[in-house]
Amino acid sequence: MSKVDKQKMELYAEKVKNWNKWGENDELGTLNYIDAQDIVYAAQLVKTGKVFPMAIPLDVNGPQWGERGRTNPHRTMVYTGTDALLGRQDFINMRYADDVVTMPLQCATHWDALGHVFYEYYEGDERKVIMWNGYSAANVDSYGCHKCGIQNTRDKLIGRGILLDMARFHGVESMDPGQGITSEDLTACAEKFGIQVKQGDFVLVRTGFLGKHMKEGVWGKYAGGDAPGLEFETLEWLHKNEVAAVATDTWGVEVRPNRSDEFLQPWHWLAIPMLGITMGENFFLDGIAEECAKDGSYEFLFVAPSLPFTNGAGSPTNPLAVK
Amino acid sequence: MSKVDKQKMELYAEKVKNWNKWGENDELGTLNYIDAQDIVYAAQLVKTGKVFPMAIPLDVNGPQWGERGRTNPHRTMVYTGTDALLGRQDFINMRYADDVVTMPLQCATHWDALGHVFYEYYEGDERKVIMWNGYSAANVDSYGCHKCGIQNTRDKLIGRGILLDMARFHGVESMDPGQGITSEDLTACAEKFGIQVKQGDFVLVRTGFLGKHMKEGVWGKYAGGDAPGLEFETLEWLHKNEVAAVATDTWGVEVRPNRSDEFLQPWHWLAIPMLGITMGENFFLDGIAEECAKDGSYEFLFVAPSLPFTNGAGSPTNPLAVK
Amino acid sequence: MSKVDKQKMELYAEKVKNWNKWGENDELGTLNYIDAQDIVYAAQLVKTGKVFPMAIPLDVNGPQWGERGRTNPHRTMVYTGTDALLGRQDFINMRYADDVVTMPLQCATHWDALGHVFYEYYEGDERKVIMWNGYSAANVDSYGCHKCGIQNTRDKLIGRGILLDMARFHGVESMDPGQGITSEDLTACAEKFGIQVKQGDFVLVRTGFLGKHMKEGVWGKYAGGDAPGLEFETLEWLHKNEVAAVATDTWGVEVRPNRSDEFLQPWHWLAIPMLGITMGENFFLDGIAEECAKDGSYEFLFVAPSLPFTNGAGSPTNPLAVK
Amino acid sequence: MSKVDKQKMELYAEKVKNWNKWGENDELGTLNYIDAQDIVYAAQLVKTGKVFPMAIPLDVNGPQWGERGRTNPHRTMVYTGTDALLGRQDFINMRYADDVVTMPLQCATHWDALGHVFYEYYEGDERKVIMWNGYSAANVDSYGCHKCGIQNTRDKLIGRGILLDMARFHGVESMDPGQGITSEDLTACAEKFGIQVKQGDFVLVRTGFLGKHMKEGVWGKYAGGDAPGLEFETLEWLHKNEVAAVATDTWGVEVRPNRSDEFLQPWHWLAIPMLGITMGENFFLDGIAEECAKDGSYEFLFVAPSLPFTNGAGSPTNPLAVK
Repeated sequence: MSKVDKQKMELYAEKVKNWNKWGENDELGTLNYIDAQDIVYAAQLVKTGKVFPMAIPLDVNGPQWGERGRTNPHRTMVYTGTDALLGRQDFINMRYADDVVTMPLQCATHWDALGHVFYEYYEGDERKVIMWNGYSAANVDSYGCHKCGIQNTRDKLIGRGILLDMARFHGVESMDPGQGITSEDLTACAEKFGIQVKQGDFVLVRTGFLGKHMKEGVWGKYAGGDAPGLEFETLEWLHKNEVAAVATDTWGVEVRPNRSDEFLQPWHWLAIPMLGITMGENFFLDGIAEECAKDGSYEFLFVAPSLPFTNGAGSPTNPLAVK
Repeated sequence: MSKVDKQKMELYAEKVKNWNKWGENDELGTLNYIDAQDIVYAAQLVKTGKVFPMAIPLDVNGPQWGERGRTNPHRTMVYTGTDALLGRQDFINMRYADDVVTMPLQCATHWDALGHVFYEYYEGDERKVIMWNGYSAANVDSYGCHKCGIQNTRDKLIGRGILLDMARFHGVESMDPGQGITSEDLTACAEKFGIQVKQGDFVLVRTGFLGKHMKEGVWGKYAGGDAPGLEFETLEWLHKNEVAAVATDTWGVEVRPNRSDEFLQPWHWLAIPMLGITMGENFFLDGIAEECAKDGSYEFLFVAPSLPFTNGAGSPTNPLAVK
Repeated sequence: MSKVDKQKMELYAEKVKNWNKWGENDELGTLNYIDAQDIVYAAQLVKTGKVFPMAIPLDVNGPQWGERGRTNPHRTMVYTGTDALLGRQDFINMRYADDVVTMPLQCATHWDALGHVFYEYYEGDERKVIMWNGYSAANVDSYGCHKCGIQNTRDKLIGRGILLDMARFHGVESMDPGQGITSEDLTACAEKFGIQVKQGDFVLVRTGFLGKHMKEGVWGKYAGGDAPGLEFETLEWLHKNEVAAVATDTWGVEVRPNRSDEFLQPWHWLAIPMLGITMGENFFLDGIAEECAKDGSYEFLFVAPSLPFTNGAGSPTNPLAVK
Repeated sequence: MSKVDKQKMELYAEKVKNWNKWGENDELGTLNYIDAQDIVYAAQLVKTGKVFPMAIPLDVNGPQWGERGRTNPHRTMVYTGTDALLGRQDFINMRYADDVVTMPLQCATHWDALGHVFYEYYEGDERKVIMWNGYSAANVDSYGCHKCGIQNTRDKLIGRGILLDMARFHGVESMDPGQGITSEDLTACAEKFGIQVKQGDFVLVRTGFLGKHMKEGVWGKYAGGDAPGLEFETLEWLHKNEVAAVATDTWGVEVRPNRSDEFLQPWHWLAIPMLGITMGENFFLDGIAEECAKDGSYEFLFVAPSLPFTNGAGSPTNPLAVK
């Protein structure tokens, strides 16, 4: 595949652009593909009542190392049981514990809001930075995303989930940093495991990379570092298949190092502002993957509610797959 | 009903105590009542694919006013679109927005962990403060809940939800502060609306109080203030019916002012450490309530994943009811 | 005095503008007026060794009520003595307490950086927003003040302090909200108490307003509310007298309600970006005021180091007056 | 020197114990040694008006790496100039920037409060954990230090500073990790540079270690890692000389690795709770050191106000040395 230069970026921008598809005031993008019947269908997939949570632990031992403001969650206590035991809560007639957290909304298992990434181009000398559906990036100021904030998704993150287990496809515990996933790979994986991609699906792509780090218990420069992931051209696959959302068990969905000298995270440049796809990162997929391999079915009820942070650029989530 | 004094507290403690029911190492309490078939059953309730989110907005305009460390979420931006537009992100080849939040885990719509509230008694002169299942409160120190942390619930908060719409039962928009809900009320409400309480249910009790405040847009001293809610004696009702969890559309589930001169939040004193019930607060129930009234069915698939904060005393959640 | 409209704003902008006075790369403004001999002189004022701290307590019971992101400091513990006593620190061979705080840098007693306030005007249709010395406001992005950050002042906030005790001048415990202080008042006050304003002085203006609130222990809408303070035209007085910095015992130095229909905080519009004066807010002045009245001398050694937050728009400080 | 075992710890505890020296209600410890005349004397040392700030920059690139809750300051913006320029502040008639920080109080250049470290011993089987002056460690709960909080020092951190430049004494840019400083070294250094230690002094001990890290710009495991510093036995030197406070240009004052198999930070075990000395860490001393070497005088006015965090276990500070 050729590198992503300016020309290729512009070509793909046109290819996958969904602006105005759901009206000029839309703030949901491809989540619009989900309809009520998809949810009914997904619910009917529940046969055994087994639940597979996908959130990684939220604490200071997380994947972040502080790059560009991304720290790990720091939770501290406002009241403790030790205080209660030593009579330090006797001023109230209650005995309890409370806590408070400081955390980036994108530090662990999370959804990116459509307001999270922008596309830039020039009209003559004038710089244009735009969001999904053509909104100006000026809508994202210090108060947050006045357009495309995460709160818009509060009732949308439920439907049919399908797993494309690329690690199992390749017969490895984990794909390697730098190892890309192409559109052809995604199609071949779906075929091999007998799952058909449908409009409105939540597509979960497993590389094994997150699970490997969890098992080893060492994060190092995982966040922002080299990783397996989607090739730039998979944007077309996602566009064509009209999927609702995509998530992976890596920190940033797309392959790293990026296939570009000019763009950092070139896939992001289009996925969010042009294609309008809601994306999830650091989804732990090993549990559901094992179950799918066991029962031979790669579809399930998927529920991953966002927290409605007003104007938020993202939200932590604990996605559940239910079979 | 008589006031809750020391004697009554001890009497009810014995009545509703579930310690060791699920083994001496249990950290889940009544969530153990849910079995896989309950989840299968709940999924089958999905007929129309309608989704009702129950989280209130997370921002600085929330219900808290700062009492005892409970502030509202304060989200700030690490990157903005305005920066991108003015060339302030040219040092990286990306254009994006990120944010960070500081928030108490119990400030908005949330679950309390079983490590959140303790029971205190004396053996001779010795003060005992204990948690669910008999663990010492010393297990909750500055690092959080080494026992009964919220992360234990990560795959448990899904099942059959039922709505007991007490406001509708009384024919009011909102019940009044100080207006109690008795066991008899709960039973009568269930009968009136044709719903049978079953083992393992998530019982949502609606007072209309949260919705009224949301509509008026003024919180004042809502948090920690007078409110309608469950009477102390409903502990027996919850115990007898073997419900999995209970949540209300108030800040603290139980009625305020409390019916006690000696205990603050007397219902809490037993609900969490003795009964071992997971409880939810500030659940917005008006949307699902309207739908239940319309279609005449007060049961639904309920999914309200907690975020797995390691040793957390609680977690924000965006509960979804699906019909 | 006439109201501050656009014309008056522009007139005073020209009157007090100090741009380029200290070179085109200057980021210190009127702090440049202080020279080494001023510090030597100020040190020699120390005769009794009495120290008067001016910082108000930093805790959740502070003056803020949450308007536009200004909350009170929220300090929580990372380790406690109660934990130590109950053996919860036995995993390390130390017994200790640590804490962490979340706080706006402008929430209590603080200095504003020169990057804190901007001046706006139009060139034709083009909006210009500029900082001290003519820097574009684009220099203040999500990373903070790339120009005129508070760290520039780290070694500058020491010199001769003088007190202009306007409350004593008027013979009141506290001046009233809305009561203005004019240039003539400042001059008359200095004369009455026998103090001569000199180039490079730190001028502390006391209204009694902060002390009154401290004594009453109720803040209400103090922050951002009506207050006594400097009239707009005092900008000329500060400019002419070449003072180094100015601080008051109010939340915002200038009188409120503002004398303008068009500008919020019109004095700020010029004081920081045009005059280039470093300003302090919520300085508790009652202690030093009492001493000055007693010994009849209104000058002292003044030391109020800022904390060098890189690119910070301000800093908390605990100013000391030493006599 | 022998290792610090239980017996040696107890021996030195008795040697340096200052409890009740200033009354049973004292919360200041050796800061009591400073009297007003010391401050007058110190002010008279100011001859040239040169100011040497000792705080290191407060930002995310600081010395911490997250161990046991110690992170670096994370400052984010609430308003920015980029917002102002793009019209995002037009809803108010002001143009400005504000910021908020989350930071451990002990993460950069800071004072430890006397409530920061405890001493532990047993009476029979009963564990005792005590603070300065014999207060129980139970006084330090989730609300902070109800005894010996940092706010007590708000007007005390000023006096005569003296520099003991051990790096220069040894003729090195920086002393080595693990290299200890003995009482004899301190005395010899004072003699060599012609400075006499007096009651009530602020003693600053320079190793060059902080400056070396600042110059190299790489912190790694600096915080909590090996470092040059004071030997355990210097407690006697500090006790005998009746110094008011001690600070170093290292993260933890005492030498690391510690000379003990049983105690982490054995010097701390006694310095704070027994000797009652206020101590400072990460003081940048290279600037003042160079000046002292140049003018041959190792004394100066020292002003390092703490911020009065109510019940705080410490405070950031920007200490100024003035000559």
